Amino acid sequence: MGRVTERRKVIRIRDGAVSTRPDTLVAEEPLEIRLNGKPLAITMRTPGDDFALAAGFLVSEGVLGRADELQNIVYCAGATVDGSNTYNIVDVRTAPGVVIPDITLERNVYTTSSCGLCGKASLDAVRTTARWSIDDTAGDTAPPVRLEPELLASLPDRLRAAQRVFDRTGGLHAAALFTEDGELVDIREDVGRHNAVDKLVGRALQNGSLPLSRTILLVSGRASFELAQKAVMAGIPFLAAVSAPSSLAVDLAAESNLTLVGFLRGTSMNVYAGEHRIALQAAAAQG
Amino acid sequence: MGRVTERRKVIRIRDGAVSTRPDTLVAEEPLEIRLNGKPLAITMRTPGDDFALAAGFLVSEGVLGRADELQNIVYCAGATVDGSNTYNIVDVRTAPGVVIPDITLERNVYTTSSCGLCGKASLDAVRTTARWSIDDTAGDTAPPVRLEPELLASLPDRLRAAQRVFDRTGGLHAAALFTEDGELVDIREDVGRHNAVDKLVGRALQNGSLPLSRTILLVSGRASFELAQKAVMAGIPFLAAVSAPSSLAVDLAAESNLTLVGFLRGTSMNVYAGEHRIALQAAAAQG
Repeated sequence: MGRVTERRKVIRIRDGAVSTRPDTLVAEEPLEIRLNGKPLAITMRTPGDDFALAAGFLVSEGVLGRADELQNIVYCAGATVDGSNTYNIVDVRTAPGVVIPDITLERNVYTTSSCGLCGKASLDAVRTTARWSIDDTAGDTAPPVRLEPELLASLPDRLRAAQRVFDRTGGLHAAALFTEDGELVDIREDVGRHNAVDKLVGRALQNGSLPLSRTILLVSGRASFELAQKAVMAGIPFLAAVSAPSSLAVDLAAESNLTLVGFLRGTSMNVYAGEHRIALQAAAAQG
Repeated sequence: MGRVTERRKVIRIRDGAVSTRPDTLVAEEPLEIRLNGKPLAITMRTPGDDFALAAGFLVSEGVLGRADELQNIVYCAGATVDGSNTYNIVDVRTAPGVVIPDITLERNVYTTSSCGLCGKASLDAVRTTARWSIDDTAGDTAPPVRLEPELLASLPDRLRAAQRVFDRTGGLHAAALFTEDGELVDIREDVGRHNAVDKLVGRALQNGSLPLSRTILLVSGRASFELAQKAVMAGIPFLAAVSAPSSLAVDLAAESNLTLVGFLRGTSMNVYAGEHRIALQAAAAQG
């Protein structure tokens, strides 16, 4: 628990000069997530926030959507011969009456007998498992989220300023939630980007703040289908990535009313879907 | 097949100027890998080299080690209602007599009943499933692989020069194999770094060149446990990464006689394990 970093000896070579010193590395350990006692998934993650990671994973899978659907989460002891607890197995108990959907043992992968396995089937699966549509108007009582490009451009620096471990190890992905005013709500770091997002979403579930209807999710690297799917499943209307999105991430965003921004660097960015949430000058948008 | 990139409309914002244009994105689609007709794993990958990906995945899992253990690989048709082929499901048939080890449905994750789930169990699992030890001396007839730091430092530029799709999309991870003289053997790009490595290793299996006893594997980003495990399973003695390794990757390298270099940038690098394969001046190595 809490072994976010570990120390190892390293030999440094700098312009031909060689030195030996201790180095700080990001910790990586397997975590098995059980659902009501049954093994569901294993992920390689950075220890810490394991309950949030498990809860967020189950939000992504469509199992959990409200805090009261979660009864409790515990570390499983007794997995070893001597009965000690490795803190690498968690069991999530759902509240009585919660219906568990069919979920596969593989992360973020969906097959349907009707369509075969393809990108479209993956999009369909998100549509059928999503607990809510992306709705940033709070039932027509609030204006939609709309951000100035300048505010968006400021977020990567705020993310980096808040990253605690990255500077020491260079080995962590980060994911952060911001308000529409650019205020940092939460940040998580993990050796796996999907884990960092699950930790954010799991915390939000535990805090009773799902769906995250008026937030911006910023991730430190690329935007894959998996990350777009996690945003949609948490009701997040805005996903921004420092690097490139994949084709399937863009397709999912376009179909799900998710705004997707990539290559968010300096004062530049690419908008791949949901441009109505960005304050563009209408005239200039004619390319 | 071969849909390595796809085109999408993108709105570009550069210093306040807005334009609309087509953009090239890296393609991402699910691939189901079946083993002798039985679904084994699904991975989100960039289409192309799917047979190599499947073969390399099965090398990583300890199922395949020699070309003659592989009978054939086919795309499965008939997965859709109209019977068309999505080219997203492959079936790998092993040759008669090949014994299939117990493998889990999750990628790169190992549990043992004796030890519980922990990093050590992950290391143990690699040790028990590895088809060969890392041996770069060809049975004592060849000198061990030994590289000058200058040669290592030149590899990232050679990798980037050979990347075909990255420049267009910015969304691909790359993995490359080099000879000990720094000559590029093969390079693969994929939306998932583990897929890029599997594609390299699968090609090597098909070419009859496993174990890759005298090669260097260079990956474009971080070195996770999963990537170190794939190197070990393919008999690769040298793994270099442009960014940071995780603690468990270093532990596996140290235990498996794998040389692990991280932060390979410019003329600098960090050596985390197996420093006997790097031509350091002995005197300078005292930190």
